[in-house]
Amino acid sequence: MKRTKKPWDGRFLEETDREVEAFTSSLSFDRRLYRQDVEGSIAHAKMLARQGIISPGEGKAIVAGLGGIRKDIEGGLVEFLPQDEDIHMAIERLLIDRIGEAGGKLHTGRSRNDQVTLDLRLYLREEIGSARKLLNNFRSLLLNLAEQERETIMPGYTHLQKAQPILLAHHLLAYHEMLQRDDERLKECHDRLNVLPLGAAALAGTGLPLDRGYTAKLLGFPRVSQNSLDAVSDRDYVAEFIFASAVIMMHLSRLSEDLIIWSSDEFRFVEIGDAFTTGSSIMPQKKNPDVAELIRGKTARIYGHLVTILTLLKGLPMSYNRDLQEDKEPLFDTIDTLKGSLAVLSGMFANLRFNRERMAEEASKGFSTATDLAEYLVVKGMPFRQAHAVVGRLVRYCLERKKTFTDLTIEEFRIFDNRFEADVREYVSVAGSISRKRVVGGTSYDSVHSRLKELADKSSKG
Amino acid sequence: MKRTKKPWDGRFLEETDREVEAFTSSLSFDRRLYRQDVEGSIAHAKMLARQGIISPGEGKAIVAGLGGIRKDIEGGLVEFLPQDEDIHMAIERLLIDRIGEAGGKLHTGRSRNDQVTLDLRLYLREEIGSARKLLNNFRSLLLNLAEQERETIMPGYTHLQKAQPILLAHHLLAYHEMLQRDDERLKECHDRLNVLPLGAAALAGTGLPLDRGYTAKLLGFPRVSQNSLDAVSDRDYVAEFIFASAVIMMHLSRLSEDLIIWSSDEFRFVEIGDAFTTGSSIMPQKKNPDVAELIRGKTARIYGHLVTILTLLKGLPMSYNRDLQEDKEPLFDTIDTLKGSLAVLSGMFANLRFNRERMAEEASKGFSTATDLAEYLVVKGMPFRQAHAVVGRLVRYCLERKKTFTDLTIEEFRIFDNRFEADVREYVSVAGSISRKRVVGGTSYDSVHSRLKELADKSSKG
Amino acid sequence: MKRTKKPWDGRFLEETDREVEAFTSSLSFDRRLYRQDVEGSIAHAKMLARQGIISPGEGKAIVAGLGGIRKDIEGGLVEFLPQDEDIHMAIERLLIDRIGEAGGKLHTGRSRNDQVTLDLRLYLREEIGSARKLLNNFRSLLLNLAEQERETIMPGYTHLQKAQPILLAHHLLAYHEMLQRDDERLKECHDRLNVLPLGAAALAGTGLPLDRGYTAKLLGFPRVSQNSLDAVSDRDYVAEFIFASAVIMMHLSRLSEDLIIWSSDEFRFVEIGDAFTTGSSIMPQKKNPDVAELIRGKTARIYGHLVTILTLLKGLPMSYNRDLQEDKEPLFDTIDTLKGSLAVLSGMFANLRFNRERMAEEASKGFSTATDLAEYLVVKGMPFRQAHAVVGRLVRYCLERKKTFTDLTIEEFRIFDNRFEADVREYVSVAGSISRKRVVGGTSYDSVHSRLKELADKSSKG
Amino acid sequence: MKRTKKPWDGRFLEETDREVEAFTSSLSFDRRLYRQDVEGSIAHAKMLARQGIISPGEGKAIVAGLGGIRKDIEGGLVEFLPQDEDIHMAIERLLIDRIGEAGGKLHTGRSRNDQVTLDLRLYLREEIGSARKLLNNFRSLLLNLAEQERETIMPGYTHLQKAQPILLAHHLLAYHEMLQRDDERLKECHDRLNVLPLGAAALAGTGLPLDRGYTAKLLGFPRVSQNSLDAVSDRDYVAEFIFASAVIMMHLSRLSEDLIIWSSDEFRFVEIGDAFTTGSSIMPQKKNPDVAELIRGKTARIYGHLVTILTLLKGLPMSYNRDLQEDKEPLFDTIDTLKGSLAVLSGMFANLRFNRERMAEEASKGFSTATDLAEYLVVKGMPFRQAHAVVGRLVRYCLERKKTFTDLTIEEFRIFDNRFEADVREYVSVAGSISRKRVVGGTSYDSVHSRLKELADKSSKG
Repeated sequence: MKRTKKPWDGRFLEETDREVEAFTSSLSFDRRLYRQDVEGSIAHAKMLARQGIISPGEGKAIVAGLGGIRKDIEGGLVEFLPQDEDIHMAIERLLIDRIGEAGGKLHTGRSRNDQVTLDLRLYLREEIGSARKLLNNFRSLLLNLAEQERETIMPGYTHLQKAQPILLAHHLLAYHEMLQRDDERLKECHDRLNVLPLGAAALAGTGLPLDRGYTAKLLGFPRVSQNSLDAVSDRDYVAEFIFASAVIMMHLSRLSEDLIIWSSDEFRFVEIGDAFTTGSSIMPQKKNPDVAELIRGKTARIYGHLVTILTLLKGLPMSYNRDLQEDKEPLFDTIDTLKGSLAVLSGMFANLRFNRERMAEEASKGFSTATDLAEYLVVKGMPFRQAHAVVGRLVRYCLERKKTFTDLTIEEFRIFDNRFEADVREYVSVAGSISRKRVVGGTSYDSVHSRLKELADKSSKG
Repeated sequence: MKRTKKPWDGRFLEETDREVEAFTSSLSFDRRLYRQDVEGSIAHAKMLARQGIISPGEGKAIVAGLGGIRKDIEGGLVEFLPQDEDIHMAIERLLIDRIGEAGGKLHTGRSRNDQVTLDLRLYLREEIGSARKLLNNFRSLLLNLAEQERETIMPGYTHLQKAQPILLAHHLLAYHEMLQRDDERLKECHDRLNVLPLGAAALAGTGLPLDRGYTAKLLGFPRVSQNSLDAVSDRDYVAEFIFASAVIMMHLSRLSEDLIIWSSDEFRFVEIGDAFTTGSSIMPQKKNPDVAELIRGKTARIYGHLVTILTLLKGLPMSYNRDLQEDKEPLFDTIDTLKGSLAVLSGMFANLRFNRERMAEEASKGFSTATDLAEYLVVKGMPFRQAHAVVGRLVRYCLERKKTFTDLTIEEFRIFDNRFEADVREYVSVAGSISRKRVVGGTSYDSVHSRLKELADKSSKG
Repeated sequence: MKRTKKPWDGRFLEETDREVEAFTSSLSFDRRLYRQDVEGSIAHAKMLARQGIISPGEGKAIVAGLGGIRKDIEGGLVEFLPQDEDIHMAIERLLIDRIGEAGGKLHTGRSRNDQVTLDLRLYLREEIGSARKLLNNFRSLLLNLAEQERETIMPGYTHLQKAQPILLAHHLLAYHEMLQRDDERLKECHDRLNVLPLGAAALAGTGLPLDRGYTAKLLGFPRVSQNSLDAVSDRDYVAEFIFASAVIMMHLSRLSEDLIIWSSDEFRFVEIGDAFTTGSSIMPQKKNPDVAELIRGKTARIYGHLVTILTLLKGLPMSYNRDLQEDKEPLFDTIDTLKGSLAVLSGMFANLRFNRERMAEEASKGFSTATDLAEYLVVKGMPFRQAHAVVGRLVRYCLERKKTFTDLTIEEFRIFDNRFEADVREYVSVAGSISRKRVVGGTSYDSVHSRLKELADKSSKG
Repeated sequence: MKRTKKPWDGRFLEETDREVEAFTSSLSFDRRLYRQDVEGSIAHAKMLARQGIISPGEGKAIVAGLGGIRKDIEGGLVEFLPQDEDIHMAIERLLIDRIGEAGGKLHTGRSRNDQVTLDLRLYLREEIGSARKLLNNFRSLLLNLAEQERETIMPGYTHLQKAQPILLAHHLLAYHEMLQRDDERLKECHDRLNVLPLGAAALAGTGLPLDRGYTAKLLGFPRVSQNSLDAVSDRDYVAEFIFASAVIMMHLSRLSEDLIIWSSDEFRFVEIGDAFTTGSSIMPQKKNPDVAELIRGKTARIYGHLVTILTLLKGLPMSYNRDLQEDKEPLFDTIDTLKGSLAVLSGMFANLRFNRERMAEEASKGFSTATDLAEYLVVKGMPFRQAHAVVGRLVRYCLERKKTFTDLTIEEFRIFDNRFEADVREYVSVAGSISRKRVVGGTSYDSVHSRLKELADKSSKG
């Protein structure tokens, strides 16, 4: 079989080993960049023509040829060859096959080194857009759910021990805060990567009179890179995106953990819709929170990808090194995992049914208003540390008698301190406890309500 | 020996196991937060007094007591106890010892949960400031060095193979670009963490009438946290700072790798000052680039810390969990490593001597102007792909005859294509090659000069 | 101040920069190797004397001098100097100070490169011994506890959903199995690292007539290294030990997670002794499973250390590079964390009180014998898949009527399949379910009992 | 379209959401386990029939049906459905489609939980075999190459600085040692995972009278698991294999780094065959060591996978959790990457041409015999530390005069110490230096020769 020549094999005597070809090829995964590759090449060709580096006719032929290739790839009509090392070489080969000599002019003043990072930036720019949409959609869902559950009382936990009563809405809004920071990080990553690298060529720039500003304009880049060596070897944006995704997944893993625990028979705080759980191959009664478990699990793979990209870059000498080819698979999988997780979690959140009675009931257990009792004493003038100790003794008293605070008579309270009066009852009630947490950011009905309003206003504005 | 009681042991029957005390104590590492702890507590006390939650006299006693403790810690006069679980408890214990009952009022409306994250934010805020100063100082050094070496020619590499001649200044400025992005990331991390968490108390806020805005003002926070659950469980800022540091170290590891390779006897591009190398215990002739090697090596520990903090946070249920105590050691070591590396690298860069002759000589080897030759043909109308192949054959011709481009006669050039004329000589000269890379971000004298000027202007302004 | 000269500064013109000295020094952490360093040097000196490379008198002087130094270090009588780069140089300096010229002969035929890895191997060899002792001690504890709880019934979980009733002993023995594999891994790591590297010198071996076999014998190494380049650059054993520790910590983190969940008020399966929990600075009622949380959290730092050591080693050219100095801190912290976690967990396990009634009660909920019911039908001839479906419908029937299997009449059972007869009652009882799981490795009383016996026998023998 | 029912949806009211189906399905990657799944099921069915749990006819029908399915999958005749959650469910569905009711009996006494880990063990057991074959094949190649280059002198490096002359064979054998340890680790991992988990069922074992020993015998497992909870939740073997692979890749990354540096124009120690390098899309003269760079880069992905699997497992409560599904993709990619790297590296090593003259020439530079000179003085009675300093001064003397040791007259030597005599010449010669390193594991011709012989003997024996 006659093999197609590599575009670069002018000086080589032997053909590439087949196994090497397979080992070094990136086509199986970088073909997903075909659209960005065509887009970047069209802009490059237009600029070349405008600068007179190629003729107007050649420019048009290239643009048309590329458009046709894109269409055919989308139509499933293109067959790639084993010796197409990557999507960039594949498209250039197709172009030359189709339009002849003019096709061989596309790569003028360009190298794969700047082309690859251009395609990746174009691609990631779009994907950050999609991911942010999914993220903010999920935030809206959280907001709606919080609105809906703004009277639902539940136990607040620290150390997975009941700590103080809170509102479920407050709990949900905590995640809204986290995801708000995530959205900021994604945006900053987007803005930082939004730079045209084309023109850096292999590493040093080019002697041809490119107009980088024009290419940037065609491709919607507000800036052009300022150092060609940096331009071809920089993958900070890949690492930064994967990090931002790792933090998002970490947040989702926490939310998933909450749901998994809440779905247990012992907690029974929430029921996940059947469509978002799966059964067991052997135990007919099971209804497993698989989606939440998988999101928790998938967090691990994004952490792995972060390690991969950082390890990859450590200690690489200037400038481009082939190691960089390994940036794509972790990036692509991060994007897919992040988007998939956000989408399916959104679906699941639209199918949760909270068990309000049970949550409220549990909120009153475990001496969850002990801090309120201490604050009662503080208000009556006792130093906090002393109040803390008094309440600690009260808790022990109750434990020994299997009582709760609400079971105690005023007389019993007064065994511990004679500052206690009838109004203590309101302090040990769950509703009273919540109502009093009026500080900004606190769990009181008022604070939560005003935060909800604030966020709804912001969200409706944009 | 009678043991001091824990501030929280009202309900407990047994004393804490000694081994447990040692295992759970964080005092050995969190004592470095003493200054921030005092600062935060002073602001809290002032606010409590202003709100009438404690009396003016109590407020003053607390402020004075805390000031004295800070001074004594700095003077080495304070002895911590094994049962001081952490710096926060230690300082409160000291305060109560010194000023009595009023000391027990400091913790009013506050929990260690919000106090810890306050201290950490105050601390990291400062440290980001110091790190940025060191980073930007090193950037200035790079700029000066680039200015000084703006005529120095060296080989540019891809795949550690000679690729095209470049200016050393251009190479140095590539790192300037990287560190510029790093500085942005640090700044954004700073701004995002610059939020007052105090007032979140244990997890739910407090019923006491705190004025969080006033505390924020005293401590210089432009914002207060909006959700108490998030406030006590958020460690995003630790992860984000460690990530930003990991990328900086990655950049420094690349620079170190360059220096290590350049210091080898085979390259001999640079000599590192004796004060920044070390010798061998057995080989008297050795002069090792240890500092560069250690920076490269220390990159690994920051990567490790990043894995630690992310792993720590994954899947934690709401809200505070004791696992979070493990955030500090990786953070502190990251700060120390980052600052130490930047400082020592700056010292080393002030002690580099570049071997200009050798760099220039090497720049002309390895057919480094082959791309220029291809561009020559492109300018003369040949499609780039064809030109690439022609030059490939020329390279092989030279290799077989052990010649370089500059050894070839015009006649020899014309064997390969008759577009070659006398002016080809200028294209294959190293100086010509560099001069022509006039594209923005390219390595030409002009481009580098104008970038240098731009950066110098910015630096003098900012 | 006159500074002590470095042992290697013969060819250097400038003194080492102070900051560089601090940055490159490892004394602050490698001083913990002093005992191994002295031990290795004594063996080396004895061998040198035996081979006639140094005189018997010199040999004796060195051995005595080193013994004295060790004693003085242990007595706190030794002051290290800033310019002592590491413990090895510090001890050699002290030796020369004390015994004069003979001290300068100790380093004959040796380099720090082989000395460092010798010390580290000696150290780790011991520490693996200690860690295994702690690990196996904890395994004995688990065994005793399993023996004690061998009748305790609890719900078995998959997906944190009740799945089937099991014995608590069976649950505890699952961890015994994990730790058994861990012990094997530690042992294999020990045996693989148990090789004498001394004699490799800097990288190439030495021309002096060392008797490596004799040194190995003195130090208890069964083998000597077979390649000097590998000997000085190999840190596989550090990575392998940290990995083995990471898996142990992972197992402990799972056990901790179990305990944390079981300690929650909603589960109430276990109460951790007061001495192994801590309280809250603000909430007087709290009793937090801090030790379990910290072990879970500390797992993250070992993962981080594993990433550090692997990242460190990646892509290092042959042979020794200074990066390797960074191997020690992660290793030392891994050892400390592992041993500390095992010790404190053992303490905690001796202070657990299981709530047997509650566990048993919960075991009967959640249709946990549904699989038994399916197996009932299988025994009666129905294909498993069909039986699974029938029981699934039975579960739904019960859910709709808020019944459990034990509430159903035979008639109700027979609505779903007429194979059901009176003996079905025994199949849906928790005790019946457990008793029937008689397969090897199953949770039946018999299987667990025989496994307990087997392990107790093994343990008493080995 | 009517959707096929899930085998477990007896109790469910709603169908699984399509997006959830896609998110939770593992068929796209676990289909590679089809052969192991069939193999395991055949053994299970034979045992069921032998125990009389199913009839002989049913057993035969199942075995035949499974054989047919395997053949059809291999022939590409099987179409999987979106609702086939995984390969296990897909094969069971096909079986029931083909042989009817008997097919529904296959899953008797089994759960996906034990089935999945069985398949994975069977698969990994085989793959470890293949990987070891490739590894040991590469070791043979190294051995042959070392044999071939056993006279080739090269500079030995520490800190990438010339240190002492060594034999290339010695350098190559260093990697042989590393890979020997790797092979041991793979073997131990294999032996530890070689345990039958089937019989653990969902988590608790089964009440049906399985003969686990018989199944183990059919499948070639020397042992059966001893605790059902551990059996279904253990993924230690996945982590252990990925770790062993990470260390192998780390070793290969070091070798790759050597090759990359040696291929540089400045070193020119080796030329990699054209078939194992690739060219540049823009620079016609380039011949890049891409394969070595990619192996170095791919090391990073295995590190990432190790982080993924460990992170995944941390803190999972007992027993099976859906997170575990995420174990497969990192494992599969590790296997593919490891095997691919070993294969392509073997190919490349068969195509290296070492530049012996240049290596030897460089070996004599950089005062590489300075240690020999110090040993000369030691032999003449000078303490090593003093000798080290004397030679250090000699080096400085030479540097200032641009001389090498071999340029010096005896008189010049004697300026530094009058122990120097004519025989010093032999000590400063490169060949003399190498010859003298006769210690076991040293670089002398003799030591290397005898090691080569030893390894060849071992290798020929097996």
